[in-house]
Amino acid sequence: MQIQDTIAALATAPGAGAIAVIRVSGENAIDIVSSIFDAKSGKILKDQDTHTLHLGNIKDDNRIIDEALVSIFKGKRSYTGEPTIEISCHGSSYIQQEILQLLFRKGCRAAKAGEFTLRAFINGKMDLSQAEAVADLIASDNAGAHQIAMQQMRGGFSNEIAQLRQELLDFASLIELELDFAEEDVEFANREEFQNLITKITRVLKRLIDSFATGNVIKNGIPVAIVGEPNVGKSTLLNALLNEERAIVSDIAGTTRDTIEDELSIGGIGFRFIDTAGIRETVDVIEGLGIKKTFEKITQAQVVLYLINADKFRNQPDLFIVEIQKIRNRFPDKPLVLVANKIDHLTEAEQHSINEQLSQLIPENSKSAVLLISAKTGTGVDELKEQLLQFVNMGALRNNETLVTNSRHYDALLKALEEIEKVQQGINDGLSSDLMAIDIREALYHFGEITGQVTNDELLGNIFANFCIGK
Amino acid sequence: MQIQDTIAALATAPGAGAIAVIRVSGENAIDIVSSIFDAKSGKILKDQDTHTLHLGNIKDDNRIIDEALVSIFKGKRSYTGEPTIEISCHGSSYIQQEILQLLFRKGCRAAKAGEFTLRAFINGKMDLSQAEAVADLIASDNAGAHQIAMQQMRGGFSNEIAQLRQELLDFASLIELELDFAEEDVEFANREEFQNLITKITRVLKRLIDSFATGNVIKNGIPVAIVGEPNVGKSTLLNALLNEERAIVSDIAGTTRDTIEDELSIGGIGFRFIDTAGIRETVDVIEGLGIKKTFEKITQAQVVLYLINADKFRNQPDLFIVEIQKIRNRFPDKPLVLVANKIDHLTEAEQHSINEQLSQLIPENSKSAVLLISAKTGTGVDELKEQLLQFVNMGALRNNETLVTNSRHYDALLKALEEIEKVQQGINDGLSSDLMAIDIREALYHFGEITGQVTNDELLGNIFANFCIGK
Repeated sequence: MQIQDTIAALATAPGAGAIAVIRVSGENAIDIVSSIFDAKSGKILKDQDTHTLHLGNIKDDNRIIDEALVSIFKGKRSYTGEPTIEISCHGSSYIQQEILQLLFRKGCRAAKAGEFTLRAFINGKMDLSQAEAVADLIASDNAGAHQIAMQQMRGGFSNEIAQLRQELLDFASLIELELDFAEEDVEFANREEFQNLITKITRVLKRLIDSFATGNVIKNGIPVAIVGEPNVGKSTLLNALLNEERAIVSDIAGTTRDTIEDELSIGGIGFRFIDTAGIRETVDVIEGLGIKKTFEKITQAQVVLYLINADKFRNQPDLFIVEIQKIRNRFPDKPLVLVANKIDHLTEAEQHSINEQLSQLIPENSKSAVLLISAKTGTGVDELKEQLLQFVNMGALRNNETLVTNSRHYDALLKALEEIEKVQQGINDGLSSDLMAIDIREALYHFGEITGQVTNDELLGNIFANFCIGK
Repeated sequence: MQIQDTIAALATAPGAGAIAVIRVSGENAIDIVSSIFDAKSGKILKDQDTHTLHLGNIKDDNRIIDEALVSIFKGKRSYTGEPTIEISCHGSSYIQQEILQLLFRKGCRAAKAGEFTLRAFINGKMDLSQAEAVADLIASDNAGAHQIAMQQMRGGFSNEIAQLRQELLDFASLIELELDFAEEDVEFANREEFQNLITKITRVLKRLIDSFATGNVIKNGIPVAIVGEPNVGKSTLLNALLNEERAIVSDIAGTTRDTIEDELSIGGIGFRFIDTAGIRETVDVIEGLGIKKTFEKITQAQVVLYLINADKFRNQPDLFIVEIQKIRNRFPDKPLVLVANKIDHLTEAEQHSINEQLSQLIPENSKSAVLLISAKTGTGVDELKEQLLQFVNMGALRNNETLVTNSRHYDALLKALEEIEKVQQGINDGLSSDLMAIDIREALYHFGEITGQVTNDELLGNIFANFCIGK
């Protein structure tokens, strides 16, 4: 892989801010930036120490493009493991582009998506699963996803894998050594210890594979289908669920109302709310189509939140009961929360009666519930949050256990387990060392895929193409 | 003014990027960040040298929020002139907010718009017109506006003003000194030199005031009204005008098609294209209203670009001639460019004939023109660019002359000129020193308003409220 060339890209978010950072990495990074930079101090940039900051002008011949602050990272002491310069310039898009164009004229080329991190991987600054965690970290928008990405970036996951791989590799070497002495029938590898290792690996692999369901949900947010007719108070409910967290979200310019309504962070976990019209009304109109859509959305969801206008329910309970039973029959295992809204209009006796009627509609299990709320006044909203969080298995997250969130890792783990099970079968069947060695090598290969000890250009291309430019 | 507290804000553009920079400034900036930062090297952040970079973890007690690179600026050697830390973290909005919330809990407060630059001004790192240029620089989206802002930020404009102010101040002191010796009838101030200074100041003020027309246009873009019916090829023309510059613009994510069509940079100058339906068609429909709107838009524009379907013109020239004459009569002094589009459909003889007929419709002056183009094939598009650029007085920009672009400065210059003219009148009328001194003081006041030597909280509030947060 050709990594001698010097790459440059905007590293901060696109658009105008107070400042922007342009990152330049590669063999000539420091020489190139030195040639366009006049330090206020009069010092020559490339003669300065690593990890120092310098104020000066970025110049294209005599034209000053900007006054900028330049950070210098020498030798391998940078993010990429190559000589690196970061230019902190004024944040106008025009200036960003002028500086980038100048760098390109001076011999840099535009960095591809994820190319800085790819170089960090190639230069041994991190393994592949850590590099992948960088992208997850940048994409993380709630405490759960952030914690998992952070843990993976700090090597929690790959350390575990790498250690098992090393132990397995040691045995593989011993078993392969036996092959050289086949005629002498020696056993360098202690078969009992080997069996213990295979048992341990099997257990760890199964735990990691199982963790994918939780990890994936935490990373991507839990899909919740809201069934409810217009005006039942969906927006008010979403706003009520947001409450104090709203201020934080809306502080970030560019976050539109739409995405706030669709994705909420509750107790540090992301929830994606999918709006459905329900199935009752659509029966009358274009029959099949409407129901089909609602059913599709419920199928995608992990939880169904059925929102009811308490006032309407009191007058015409049967309309709702029919619809709830339809959903119940179709999705018997899906957690269902019946939420009667607008209870501030009702007397206590009326509330009690609604609670009774609704409770009869759900099976008695921990994954379904009836809640009476007023989204407007906030009554019952905290209970609803609690109920939603109960659907997430938060145990693993709280205990700092390793969770697999990446489907590439999940695939590799499944394949590794498959091979390890073959090895186990081999032990049981008293398979010869030479055949067992092949299965062990296969398992090692899949372990190596995760950390990047085994890799190829296509795989790397796929992984880093999902990064943003500048990372 | 209370500036002891420590402020923090996101300094890079909002939204997700590879990295984001959070700026912290104030007496306790270094202590506060030290308390949440664990350097990889094990070093204590606050003991490190100014202008150095440190990699480590941002921690909230034991929870690691991010691995970040921290820049440290000690004493007065920062942008704000106060101890400052810049935290370069991973660019997720979640991480940005977590770090900011942590800083707020540790005693920082959220910086108001422009507050870092306000502190730079208060701490004497720049004068007021330079501070204003920072906002202009960030907002600049073409070479012209950028050059003016850069020049102003580097003090070109305020140096000129400050020098004149100093010379005038010296004379004011001498003249006021004469008042103390009024009975002795001495003249400390050489009246001939004083007259020369007033002449020079008058000349400079008039030049600066005149430059506002050009400066303002370069800063804000030149409004061009495009008159033309639907399908005459407006979009194709705007795309053709963009050509090579398009790649640069569309590289910047977040730049939508809409804004590209409205604002183009041609030869480093911004042009704002205002779409109008024309006045012909609207006559038939809701008569007055349509015409009124088109006329309003033409009134706002500095150039009218009348786009004609050459094919249609050949068949029904009178329809166009009537409309062109209406515009001509209503706006006799407004530069008008008649552009016959789609000439690739026509023979050379037909093109010649159209050119003849159209040329008769415009007055013979340099500010009007006829052009035959094909937006589709690109024929004539460069000539149109040239023509548009001719309408801008680029002389001043090319010669690096000071241009006034800020209406606050323009107002202050007008008031200063008014006072200077009173002083001149006083000289002519042989006014007594004590009365003349009052006019001089008034002029000095308006000079000082520009550079910020004279200021008040309300003025500063107005100026810095227009900045972005984090600058």
